[in-house]
Amino acid sequence: MTVRFLALYETPADPAAFDRHYREVHVPLARRLPGLRRYVIGRDPAAVRGGAPCYLIAELEWDTLEESHAAFASPEGHATAADATYLQELAPVRSMIFTVGEA
Amino acid sequence: MTVRFLALYETPADPAAFDRHYREVHVPLARRLPGLRRYVIGRDPAAVRGGAPCYLIAELEWDTLEESHAAFASPEGHATAADATYLQELAPVRSMIFTVGEA
Repeated sequence: MTVRFLALYETPADPAAFDRHYREVHVPLARRLPGLRRYVIGRDPAAVRGGAPCYLIAELEWDTLEESHAAFASPEGHATAADATYLQELAPVRSMIFTVGEA
Repeated sequence: MTVRFLALYETPADPAAFDRHYREVHVPLARRLPGLRRYVIGRDPAAVRGGAPCYLIAELEWDTLEESHAAFASPEGHATAADATYLQELAPVRSMIFTVGEA
């Protein structure tokens, strides 16, 4: 089983400031989340359907829902969430968590 | 390198009809896409930020951008796209394609 956290950022008002904060502050914080198995980002997405694509897509994985919950509840989780609240001022975001299965 | 196609479906008017068509028609079509390395779905996502979560998240992977383009341009790609146009009548969708890198 894999649990995936998906964050979809829309285009920031100041892309350079967003990119810098994301890369220099957010990534280092999130990489310390307990139990994190993988953390990938997709940049410069091209739209296929439904209008403009997102600006930045981040996907973080844990082995189980329990481990993802523990990560969010940890001190590292609180620090990452506080930074996500700041990032949200730079770019609108929609994020969600789900279990992944083969189609 | 990995190329990921991400489709984000909003809640359908008739979830049972959407689920049935997605499972019985769309998945078999998309699984025949040339060069497809992985096809996963996330169901019942829980929102973290930014309002309601999506209803269904689908992620399809290829090794290279060229292979993903070839898949979309193939007869199987045209059949899958035609079915995606029908699915779009059942549930709003936003989809995009991007290259994935470690954060």
